[in-house]
Amino acid sequence: MSTRIESRENALVKRLAKLSADRKFRRETGEMVCEGGKMLGEALASGVTVHAVLVADDALVSTAVLHSAEQAGAKLYSCPPALLAKVSNVKTPQGVVFSCTRPMAELESFAGARRLMVLEGLQDPGNLGTIMRTADAFALDGIILCEGCVDPTSPKVVRATMGAAFRLPIAAAGIEETAAFLHRQGLPLYAAALGADSVPVTQVDLHRAAVLIGNEGRGVSKKAAALSDRQIIIPMEGRAESLNASVAASILMYEMSRGGGEAI
Amino acid sequence: MSTRIESRENALVKRLAKLSADRKFRRETGEMVCEGGKMLGEALASGVTVHAVLVADDALVSTAVLHSAEQAGAKLYSCPPALLAKVSNVKTPQGVVFSCTRPMAELESFAGARRLMVLEGLQDPGNLGTIMRTADAFALDGIILCEGCVDPTSPKVVRATMGAAFRLPIAAAGIEETAAFLHRQGLPLYAAALGADSVPVTQVDLHRAAVLIGNEGRGVSKKAAALSDRQIIIPMEGRAESLNASVAASILMYEMSRGGGEAI
Repeated sequence: MSTRIESRENALVKRLAKLSADRKFRRETGEMVCEGGKMLGEALASGVTVHAVLVADDALVSTAVLHSAEQAGAKLYSCPPALLAKVSNVKTPQGVVFSCTRPMAELESFAGARRLMVLEGLQDPGNLGTIMRTADAFALDGIILCEGCVDPTSPKVVRATMGAAFRLPIAAAGIEETAAFLHRQGLPLYAAALGADSVPVTQVDLHRAAVLIGNEGRGVSKKAAALSDRQIIIPMEGRAESLNASVAASILMYEMSRGGGEAI
Repeated sequence: MSTRIESRENALVKRLAKLSADRKFRRETGEMVCEGGKMLGEALASGVTVHAVLVADDALVSTAVLHSAEQAGAKLYSCPPALLAKVSNVKTPQGVVFSCTRPMAELESFAGARRLMVLEGLQDPGNLGTIMRTADAFALDGIILCEGCVDPTSPKVVRATMGAAFRLPIAAAGIEETAAFLHRQGLPLYAAALGADSVPVTQVDLHRAAVLIGNEGRGVSKKAAALSDRQIIIPMEGRAESLNASVAASILMYEMSRGGGEAI
C-alpha cells in the first residue's frame, strides 16, 4: 500500500533532498537519509525507526523488506525512476531512498565498555564510514566523536558503513569530557601519534582500552595528546605517518581484538 | 624557464586531459597524469621520468621542486588557474599537473621476493590506491595485479597512493601465471577467503608469503582459490566478510610485518 508521487515539488521529495544536503536540518529533525534495499533491510533488522520509504518503479527490492518496513510503521511511496534519481546521492541509484532516525548514544552509556575508538577532527566521510564499518566488524563497544569530525549521519558516511551506522553506538563529546569519562572508568586512552615517548602498538595491551585517532593531515592535537595516557605507533619499516587514517584505525582495532578476549 | 600556455586548444592541455580520461591512451604512451607540488617532489625523488609540468599562476609549489624537474629533463609550462582547472581531476586543484612515465615491473623481477600482495578483480580506485600506499608503508616487495583490476595509473588510484605509485613495484599477470611463478619461487599463496578449510590469519606465518585479495563484492574467484595453497580469514566476532577490501588487505599486510623479520 504505497502513495504515488509524481512531482518534484512533493513535500517528501523536498524533505529527503534537504536531509541529504543539510547537516543542520538533520540535527534539528534527528533524521538521516539512506539508500538501497539491502540498507533498508539492515536498518529494520537493527531496530532503527524508518519513517518514509521512496521506491522507484524499477527498484530491485524484495517485497518482504517493504512489507517489514510497513509493519514497522514506515510509510511507503512509489515514484518514477527519474524522480528517485533526483533524490539519490549516488551515480547509479538502486531505486530505494528512505529516511530514518537513529539516536546518538550518550557518553555515559559507555560505562563498562572495554574497547572504544575516539576520533578527533576526522574529516573524510569515507574514512569515518570505513572506521564505523570496521568497529562493527570487530564488535567494539562504540565510537566517540570529538571536536571537528564529519557528521556521522551524512549520506557519504552512512553509505561507507555498509549498515554499521544502524548498529554501532556513536556518541559525540568534547575531548576533555571524553578523557575525564574514560579516566573515571579506568579505561586507558592511547593516542595514535608519533612522539618522543611513543611505544609500538605490539607492546601495549589494547584489549581493554580507548584508542584516539586524529585528523587526516594534522594528526592528534597537542591538547588531545596531553590528555592521553600514552602515545602509540604502528611499527613500519620507515615511512612514518604514511597510512591512511581509516587504515591506521582499522589496524589498531584489529590489534584491540587480536588473539585475546572473546574476539577470536 | 617555462613556456606560456593560454589556450584550451593547446596540444599539451589536450594531451594531459586525454591521459587523465583514457586508459587505452595511457597504455599506448606509457604515461600517467599526477597533481600537486608534493606529488611532483615524490615523483622526482623516486626517479620517475617526468615529461611535462603545467603550473598555474597561483600554484603553491616550491621553486626548488620546479628546478629539480627541469634539471631532470622535464619541460615546464605556465598557465592561468582557470586553464589548469580544466585539466585537473580534483575539486580544489593545487596548481600543478604533470605527466610522467613509470614502467610496470615484470613478474620475474619478483624473484627472491618475501612479501607480495596479489589482487584479483579489485575495482575501486580508492581501494587500490590505499592498498598501494599501505604496501609501501610496510615495505612489501610489490603487488601483482591479476584479472579485472582497475588501472593502477588512473588519476584516482595515483592520488590515493600518496606517492607510493612512484615507488612500489607493480606487475600485471594472469592468476595462473602468477600462481605458477610463486610456486617456482617456493612462496606460498594464501587467499583471503571464507571457506570450509579457512584458518585464522594468526595461525599462519605470513612473514614470507603472497596474499591474495579478491573483488569487493564477490571476493576471490573459485579459480584463484583453487590455485592458492590455503585460505585465510581475519578473526572477527561475527560479521564475516564485513571489512572493506582495502582494510582487509591492510590488516593482512600489517600481519605480514608484525613482530618479525626486519619490519619492526
